[in-house]
Amino acid sequence: MLPLNPVSLITRKRDGAALAASEIADLIAAYTRGDVPDYQMAAFLMAAFLNGLDTEEATALTNAMLHSGEILDLSDLPGIKVDKHSTGGVGDKVSLILAPLVAACGVPVPMISGRGLGHTGGTLDKLEAIPGFNVNLSIEEYRRQLEHIGVVMMGQTAEIAPADRKLYALRDVTATVESIPLIAASIMSKKLAEGIDALVLDVKSGLGAFMKEEDDARKLAETLVGIGQSVGKPTIALLTNMDAPLGRAIGNWPETAEAIRILRNEIPAGGAVDDVLDVTLALAGEMICLGGVADSPEAGFEKAKHTLESGIAFEKWVELVETQGGDIAVLDNPDSREGSQPIAEIPAPVSGYVAGIDSLELGLASVRLGAGRTIKDDNVDPIAGFVLNKSIGSPVEAGEPLVTAFASDPSRLDTEAVQHAFTIAPEPPPVPPSRLIGRFDGVKWSS
Amino acid sequence: MLPLNPVSLITRKRDGAALAASEIADLIAAYTRGDVPDYQMAAFLMAAFLNGLDTEEATALTNAMLHSGEILDLSDLPGIKVDKHSTGGVGDKVSLILAPLVAACGVPVPMISGRGLGHTGGTLDKLEAIPGFNVNLSIEEYRRQLEHIGVVMMGQTAEIAPADRKLYALRDVTATVESIPLIAASIMSKKLAEGIDALVLDVKSGLGAFMKEEDDARKLAETLVGIGQSVGKPTIALLTNMDAPLGRAIGNWPETAEAIRILRNEIPAGGAVDDVLDVTLALAGEMICLGGVADSPEAGFEKAKHTLESGIAFEKWVELVETQGGDIAVLDNPDSREGSQPIAEIPAPVSGYVAGIDSLELGLASVRLGAGRTIKDDNVDPIAGFVLNKSIGSPVEAGEPLVTAFASDPSRLDTEAVQHAFTIAPEPPPVPPSRLIGRFDGVKWSS
Repeated sequence: MLPLNPVSLITRKRDGAALAASEIADLIAAYTRGDVPDYQMAAFLMAAFLNGLDTEEATALTNAMLHSGEILDLSDLPGIKVDKHSTGGVGDKVSLILAPLVAACGVPVPMISGRGLGHTGGTLDKLEAIPGFNVNLSIEEYRRQLEHIGVVMMGQTAEIAPADRKLYALRDVTATVESIPLIAASIMSKKLAEGIDALVLDVKSGLGAFMKEEDDARKLAETLVGIGQSVGKPTIALLTNMDAPLGRAIGNWPETAEAIRILRNEIPAGGAVDDVLDVTLALAGEMICLGGVADSPEAGFEKAKHTLESGIAFEKWVELVETQGGDIAVLDNPDSREGSQPIAEIPAPVSGYVAGIDSLELGLASVRLGAGRTIKDDNVDPIAGFVLNKSIGSPVEAGEPLVTAFASDPSRLDTEAVQHAFTIAPEPPPVPPSRLIGRFDGVKWSS
Repeated sequence: MLPLNPVSLITRKRDGAALAASEIADLIAAYTRGDVPDYQMAAFLMAAFLNGLDTEEATALTNAMLHSGEILDLSDLPGIKVDKHSTGGVGDKVSLILAPLVAACGVPVPMISGRGLGHTGGTLDKLEAIPGFNVNLSIEEYRRQLEHIGVVMMGQTAEIAPADRKLYALRDVTATVESIPLIAASIMSKKLAEGIDALVLDVKSGLGAFMKEEDDARKLAETLVGIGQSVGKPTIALLTNMDAPLGRAIGNWPETAEAIRILRNEIPAGGAVDDVLDVTLALAGEMICLGGVADSPEAGFEKAKHTLESGIAFEKWVELVETQGGDIAVLDNPDSREGSQPIAEIPAPVSGYVAGIDSLELGLASVRLGAGRTIKDDNVDPIAGFVLNKSIGSPVEAGEPLVTAFASDPSRLDTEAVQHAFTIAPEPPPVPPSRLIGRFDGVKWSS
């Protein structure tokens, strides 16, 4: 074998060539060992950012990062294990409903999640808003729980994809984050380490998503599905809209409380959280189909809908929370959670109809209120967040409560920013389109 | 003043924006201080490599690197100080003839030169092939010699453009060397530190040049002249061909000996080194005109031609060598230099006419023979090199001596590579065009 020549690989990527899988594997392995310095990897990343990586290269990068750490093997456990990954949004509490729901339908769900990033929330932070809930499981505990109750939700361990952590830290300080193949390889290396058999992706597009443009989100979906299928894991992507926040609640406990109410069927159909249900049931249908428990995503959707309405999904949720040490009393009455009383009602500044809600502005305001982190080691305030009393199309009167705010530290509330996120128009807006924009199966897009 | 945000500058260059001069100045200053790490500068360099720098940015980069170190001030010395810089070639001994020639015409020439790089030779190595010649002068010695004899030739001191040295070392290991604006800024930052008033550039294009393509060489010439004129220094570029080696000799002492013979008028006109004279006199004409001693480059050319033929240029050369400690006995009889006896005559493998001589192949063979360095701290063999007995168009018989080789270590001779550099055709080739391809004055190209 020839010794690795990083300058030659950087040169070829700089000049627009595609690298061989073995070259990418060698480069990432040498970087992880410390044999290739940060400055050479930074030059490579910028060349890859500007000249792109094709699906074969992105797959090779995924595999290289995947094999830099431990890969969980769940093949001895029965069932087709399926997970879901969202590219991140505002008010996206879908995982909390989806994981117990799909498990209740008989598909094992091993879910490894992340924390909030930028203006977006993270599933781990939301789970930890339930007093006592433990997301720091050992790999043995993870396996055992999946085997016993069919669902487990935890954080990434240090053993998983260490190359991705090292590369992500470098990308963050070298302006090479927003690259579709680099993002896709980072996501997929972590997901494939979970021991899953199939994967459903919720790729978000719009104001509050990392991909503002639908074209970019479509490319990301195609790259993610391409990588998954290249490594032999059936993968489906749904493209969903993230202009307005998903549902009514933003922030860790507010979102968890909303998820609990949906699991308890306490929110009537035709109400303001129909969009959460639409996205959750669509994703559930795909997972249940991939998991072999339904013949089609449509059949999976129907099965999920009945399972939710029957209360069995809520029972699985209670079992999940109890197994991971969470306080199940708050599941029966979310308002009983300590500290979950409103600190303010934010009034509408003018009368009219809600024509737009900017999820990026509300996400940023929730971070400032304490729901997210501005530096990596910040603690989050589990209570902090907003509940929107109005959705797109709602009529409002000036002075009427638009948003209810929650926080441990009321001084961090930015009332003006919250009001500014709402566009209030004199006429009712057109009915907003469905959150579900498209579906990519690896070959074609459908809606 | 806002604190420097390197990620924001990298992002903007990545996205194709032009940076302000003050931003580039701050970035380079912070990098030189060590406040911006190599990995961020590597990402910036790759973004600049791929998205380019416009003339304003290249000028700002030049100024930033120039001001990272000492800038010599020769303004108290009389005369318009003019230097020449060549982008590097094979057999390019022009500086050795040009510096004393232009000085003999009354234009002060403060020349700071480099060493061989890759397959190309360097003026310092050629000067040091004269026993005793000292290129390591202090800045005070440099000033004093220029004042007393009107010409000085030395190496770069550590005080000049330290940012360029640090950046060049990083570019070398991050595949960001071959960028026209980065090359131009590196050249100009060092030249402008010399204390010159005007500059003539010999930009080489062809097989043995760093710019293989004439279009790239033209862009480099335009960038170099643009930077020079932007900082108020009259600058002219000549574009010259570097497909075949310049003149007959390649290697340090062989080239110095050839230069000595040209200065001594020992090589008859119409012979094999007419190309060296063509390039030298054209550059001299420009320098003499910029130096205010002739009204036009054409008048400068005539003045240089007469000065060379009169022997006054050789007298200046003897004065220069003697002042810098060199053995002047070898100037009277180059063959008397110790060790300068041939080690081999390389025969023509077939009969025909010389239709092409690949200067890159010969340059690389001369490096392997000892004339250059394969790693930075190699010593060069001052003797090693080639003298070509045939030039383009010469008829040759199989077995006839094509090249005479010189070296301290005959085992390093690669006879086959030398033969391979010659294209021998059955028919005489067309008469080769002039070495002089074009001239750029900052506004337009002329020939």
